[in-house]
Amino acid sequence: MTEAVMMDELTWPEYQERVRNGIPVFLVVGSTEQHGPHLPLGTDVFQGLAIARAAAERTGGIVAPSLAYGYKSQPKSGGGESFAGTTSLDAQTLLLQVRDVLRALLRHGNRRLVLIDGHYENAAFIAEGIDLALRENGSSGARILVFHWWELISQSTIHTIFEGNFPGWALEHAAVVETSLMAAVNPTLVHWDRLVDDRPERRVPYEIFPSPPDVIPRSGVLSPARRASADHGRRILIEVVEDVVKAMQAEFSL
Amino acid sequence: MTEAVMMDELTWPEYQERVRNGIPVFLVVGSTEQHGPHLPLGTDVFQGLAIARAAAERTGGIVAPSLAYGYKSQPKSGGGESFAGTTSLDAQTLLLQVRDVLRALLRHGNRRLVLIDGHYENAAFIAEGIDLALRENGSSGARILVFHWWELISQSTIHTIFEGNFPGWALEHAAVVETSLMAAVNPTLVHWDRLVDDRPERRVPYEIFPSPPDVIPRSGVLSPARRASADHGRRILIEVVEDVVKAMQAEFSL
Amino acid sequence: MTEAVMMDELTWPEYQERVRNGIPVFLVVGSTEQHGPHLPLGTDVFQGLAIARAAAERTGGIVAPSLAYGYKSQPKSGGGESFAGTTSLDAQTLLLQVRDVLRALLRHGNRRLVLIDGHYENAAFIAEGIDLALRENGSSGARILVFHWWELISQSTIHTIFEGNFPGWALEHAAVVETSLMAAVNPTLVHWDRLVDDRPERRVPYEIFPSPPDVIPRSGVLSPARRASADHGRRILIEVVEDVVKAMQAEFSL
Amino acid sequence: MTEAVMMDELTWPEYQERVRNGIPVFLVVGSTEQHGPHLPLGTDVFQGLAIARAAAERTGGIVAPSLAYGYKSQPKSGGGESFAGTTSLDAQTLLLQVRDVLRALLRHGNRRLVLIDGHYENAAFIAEGIDLALRENGSSGARILVFHWWELISQSTIHTIFEGNFPGWALEHAAVVETSLMAAVNPTLVHWDRLVDDRPERRVPYEIFPSPPDVIPRSGVLSPARRASADHGRRILIEVVEDVVKAMQAEFSL
Amino acid sequence: MTEAVMMDELTWPEYQERVRNGIPVFLVVGSTEQHGPHLPLGTDVFQGLAIARAAAERTGGIVAPSLAYGYKSQPKSGGGESFAGTTSLDAQTLLLQVRDVLRALLRHGNRRLVLIDGHYENAAFIAEGIDLALRENGSSGARILVFHWWELISQSTIHTIFEGNFPGWALEHAAVVETSLMAAVNPTLVHWDRLVDDRPERRVPYEIFPSPPDVIPRSGVLSPARRASADHGRRILIEVVEDVVKAMQAEFSL
Amino acid sequence: MTEAVMMDELTWPEYQERVRNGIPVFLVVGSTEQHGPHLPLGTDVFQGLAIARAAAERTGGIVAPSLAYGYKSQPKSGGGESFAGTTSLDAQTLLLQVRDVLRALLRHGNRRLVLIDGHYENAAFIAEGIDLALRENGSSGARILVFHWWELISQSTIHTIFEGNFPGWALEHAAVVETSLMAAVNPTLVHWDRLVDDRPERRVPYEIFPSPPDVIPRSGVLSPARRASADHGRRILIEVVEDVVKAMQAEFSL
Repeated sequence: MTEAVMMDELTWPEYQERVRNGIPVFLVVGSTEQHGPHLPLGTDVFQGLAIARAAAERTGGIVAPSLAYGYKSQPKSGGGESFAGTTSLDAQTLLLQVRDVLRALLRHGNRRLVLIDGHYENAAFIAEGIDLALRENGSSGARILVFHWWELISQSTIHTIFEGNFPGWALEHAAVVETSLMAAVNPTLVHWDRLVDDRPERRVPYEIFPSPPDVIPRSGVLSPARRASADHGRRILIEVVEDVVKAMQAEFSL
Repeated sequence: MTEAVMMDELTWPEYQERVRNGIPVFLVVGSTEQHGPHLPLGTDVFQGLAIARAAAERTGGIVAPSLAYGYKSQPKSGGGESFAGTTSLDAQTLLLQVRDVLRALLRHGNRRLVLIDGHYENAAFIAEGIDLALRENGSSGARILVFHWWELISQSTIHTIFEGNFPGWALEHAAVVETSLMAAVNPTLVHWDRLVDDRPERRVPYEIFPSPPDVIPRSGVLSPARRASADHGRRILIEVVEDVVKAMQAEFSL
Repeated sequence: MTEAVMMDELTWPEYQERVRNGIPVFLVVGSTEQHGPHLPLGTDVFQGLAIARAAAERTGGIVAPSLAYGYKSQPKSGGGESFAGTTSLDAQTLLLQVRDVLRALLRHGNRRLVLIDGHYENAAFIAEGIDLALRENGSSGARILVFHWWELISQSTIHTIFEGNFPGWALEHAAVVETSLMAAVNPTLVHWDRLVDDRPERRVPYEIFPSPPDVIPRSGVLSPARRASADHGRRILIEVVEDVVKAMQAEFSL
Repeated sequence: MTEAVMMDELTWPEYQERVRNGIPVFLVVGSTEQHGPHLPLGTDVFQGLAIARAAAERTGGIVAPSLAYGYKSQPKSGGGESFAGTTSLDAQTLLLQVRDVLRALLRHGNRRLVLIDGHYENAAFIAEGIDLALRENGSSGARILVFHWWELISQSTIHTIFEGNFPGWALEHAAVVETSLMAAVNPTLVHWDRLVDDRPERRVPYEIFPSPPDVIPRSGVLSPARRASADHGRRILIEVVEDVVKAMQAEFSL
Repeated sequence: MTEAVMMDELTWPEYQERVRNGIPVFLVVGSTEQHGPHLPLGTDVFQGLAIARAAAERTGGIVAPSLAYGYKSQPKSGGGESFAGTTSLDAQTLLLQVRDVLRALLRHGNRRLVLIDGHYENAAFIAEGIDLALRENGSSGARILVFHWWELISQSTIHTIFEGNFPGWALEHAAVVETSLMAAVNPTLVHWDRLVDDRPERRVPYEIFPSPPDVIPRSGVLSPARRASADHGRRILIEVVEDVVKAMQAEFSL
Repeated sequence: MTEAVMMDELTWPEYQERVRNGIPVFLVVGSTEQHGPHLPLGTDVFQGLAIARAAAERTGGIVAPSLAYGYKSQPKSGGGESFAGTTSLDAQTLLLQVRDVLRALLRHGNRRLVLIDGHYENAAFIAEGIDLALRENGSSGARILVFHWWELISQSTIHTIFEGNFPGWALEHAAVVETSLMAAVNPTLVHWDRLVDDRPERRVPYEIFPSPPDVIPRSGVLSPARRASADHGRRILIEVVEDVVKAMQAEFSL
């Protein structure tokens, strides 16, 4: 039996044995989306995968192939759909995808499922996909946990990193937290020399369709990332993984 | 500008510049599916990616994040849906996914798109996804090529590998060609010691729903893989990549 | 010409004349959902309508018939779907409804549309409905504003009302803000004698499916409403309406 | 416990108690549609609600929030989709809405459901929505009655009102019956001074797509309303409500 | 060039030439549904085809392959879905089918399309299918006529056949008119010896879901067919075809 | 009881009796598609029906009304969608149709169902339609067989007919086999004088979207039909029917 933590590297008998042993299965729901001039399009998947792999290693779990395309970027949380590279799905497409993958994982006999959401805009559609899968088949005693990983960061870490200037999670796109975490998990993909101090010209507490240009920063960066560091990233990663593992222990009786 | 060939490793300005230069974009449509006791669940994606990366390197192209889940395995070409690990999508889910990703890639300005299909059962749904994307937006001069990579293997290679005993592509699941290609591109994931000489008890020239057990081999292997070798795999890879590149030169005026 | 502000009270020639004059049209997207033992099931619609009517009166606009059913209540923001009275729609149903009504309003010639969202869980599906309507027909110069009304409340008002103990918007279900606003706009429907000091037994920074009972308060109240008052409600209403009107002036060049 | 007859004015414990007592729940499926120069866009909802409220009062029932948008107006029964103000849904949107609301009402434990259809074109989609809800969950002993209220008017009333010149229900749009009933239930919304003696230039016993202008009267009135009166309206209301109540007694064993 | 009137008997160049000449194309939308013990399941298609063929012969038109499955039978117009043999489609299935076939016929260049509806319950879904096809592509100057053939029968014929006892079209299922028309167009499929004098035990002016047994006659016959005769059938056929042809001359400028 | 083999010619009691006796039911899934200048648009249905009728006669079965429209023609197997007369369905439309008809046939109590696929491009959507029908209701012990009839032709027959030059089934469109079979079953619809020796200018082992003109033969014929003869057709028909009957005996325990 290999030590692989990635489901796609397992043969089906290896996978089946693990499922019978009640191991947890992780699924990352990410996006392919602009993350400013200094972070790659796959940032949401890379971050989700780093968390999922670390938590899987600690819990004996395995990581299913990621859903690499997410819901449409919104101007106020991801810069909107006008950037080259942002490659998004309709609501129906994403929620059916979540439903179908969960339906299959439940059919295999899995009872401990963990979704790591790496993209702010995915949340509602993940919830619907799960609801449809459970409505159709029941849960057969399975439990599904969904983590929007940034919501696990403690107030004390936020305070340390932002020194009191936390702009809220929506604006934290391609900014301090994401740059720090990428510096910790994929350092070669962070272009520190291209950091920009961008932000939208105008921030409004409502949404405008179609998006006028002045609510979208030209660079795609929603708030400056200067405070970012690999150290911050490591702290975030450790904290988030710790919280995921603790939650799994509590909810799955691991 | 990085040398990265993977779209998810590019920043959006890097991606945009490449798109403006007319580079080709590759998309692998794979599956997560049993491939016998000796090959991993991700075989169809790994193979598609190996071909896509090699062809992208030769043509200056980039590879978009793969669609890692495919259409339902059919008993006669993949052993059916009863195996643990086989994780498939409904028709509507898969075709919407293809439609949405293509819609976005076309919106970015891409005009040279290459789909590498790694899963026998995906073909019809890829065609529908493309048709819906083009119906909605027109092609704006774009061309989309779809390769079912096994169809590019020459008669002479088939003759060499099978020594005249080629069982047809449907039965070539987890068998000689797939095992060889995996041995060439992901040798650590091939378990030579677990090769079985399995085949369905009964082969019928029609389909039966629900599948009776005797048309599905217990191991998931549809025909024996003994003839497989990394050498055969390298020959296949070189030949297929060469054919993809030649086709791109012809159809895209590269 | 009547003075009616409600679209359903206008004849079609009256409506047509107003549309030709460029008046704004408001649409409330609400819910029918448990709001504890002291607030009615229609709370989200009543609040949205109060805001829409007041803003319509100030801007010469009209209010379209409300969408009275919203997306599924989530345990952490509305108590979940297990309560009697909570009557929710699938994602696809809600987003198609938003798409279809907007499609018709745009066809009539409207160019200034305002959606008042009264239900925390609706946001993503409203965005998708708008996106589908605009993709299909373009905006023809129309602008659509979406207000999640609670996001317009100023920090100073939040500070005044909560005296520093603001629990976040998700937990503000059937609690201080909603009770106050209902006391201002539908006082006879607020049952002060039934206020409970309830909250979930357990609050976790992630989601669990299916919902275990201890994350849902038996009363449906997610945080205590004791601080609520009609005065607070009037302050909120005035502030929110003022902000909606200002936003309309800015975005619609009224 | 309040005396409210409207579901949205009840708290969830009040609602739950009534459901446990087996009270009937009414749902109006209306439209937002042109009704000539003398009747408002909401006519179908206002009429349906008047009937539902009166029947609910007599049977101890409650009235759920109305579906205020209906299926597309057809030229021969509502003047078609070209009028300003006519705001209609696609078939799929309407039938999913009916399915979802019924699914929730059945989940609450309701066993006596009454749909009051206020719009000629809704009938087939209401039937489909009910069929989908029952197919999914079974009826659990529930019964659902659907009334197209005009079909309850007796021959003797029709004879009295039309003095033998009844044009058939399809043409009775914004005409004698609707004007009379509105005069009885919402008199301030009837503009007697704007009555026109309109009718389509041409009436044909088939349908033409797209609609040529001569099958649609410019005013939206399909036959003259001169015979209308509030007295007629009261007679209709009393008769229809009486019939609904009698049907409920017979079918629900009230 | 053959004289064939059936589209499926033409080669594509023959078809293309006719389309270029502006010939009308007929499409029958029928059902496969119980029609009592004396008429066959295909009655609605056979009748629609007889009308379409006769009208096509008189106008130089051709008849496309029929849609042989229709919308779900309703108890009050077809006996409901409980009979063996009644084989019906969901709303979405039927309307997409109408949309797709019309989309293709319009793409071929047809501008004169005639739908013959043979099944009472199909009407609303045919209208939606046409609306979706036209919304997507526009009509390009095409006109589509829809005939519910029974609505073309004159008052004088109804008077003659029913001698004043016409029960209304909904109840005319497997009864006088259908039996007569079948006797005229497919006499060998009419089993005169099995005529029953059946009718529902109870007729109510509303709908009940699920259907109680007493609103459905055991035989499936909604009113007695004794008055039926081949002579009546021929009269109906001649009259209906004449009306279809006249309508086509008027609407298509033939 | 009539001797009819066509389901639409049976009354519902006749049909019910047969179903109770366990007779098999056949359903043809065809297409309306160009078949060159010498074969009619309905070729796929005519061939499927000939096989279904013959097999039904031998097994006491009956034939349900055909699905006469199929999935979109692909350039490499049917010439693509650009020909006049090719009238195809979206994937979703076709698979819902298969699902709905099977759902009804299963509800009637049928346990032996045979689908005869007459169109190369239908296969994947038939499989999905069956999967959805069985997922929804289970099979209740029913078995469904699907025959793509050309796959039943023996190597020896292929050898005899093609004299060693068999081009593969995809290219056998409007060519030797189809022309021969039509000559056997509908000789008056074969125009021998219009046979052309056409083929695509260019054959490529991949797909190109949108289709360039040089991969589509102008005539629609994908390979020459000169070897065709009614004798070959009769041999094919006898062989295929024999194989269908044998398969039914084996799978249905007839």
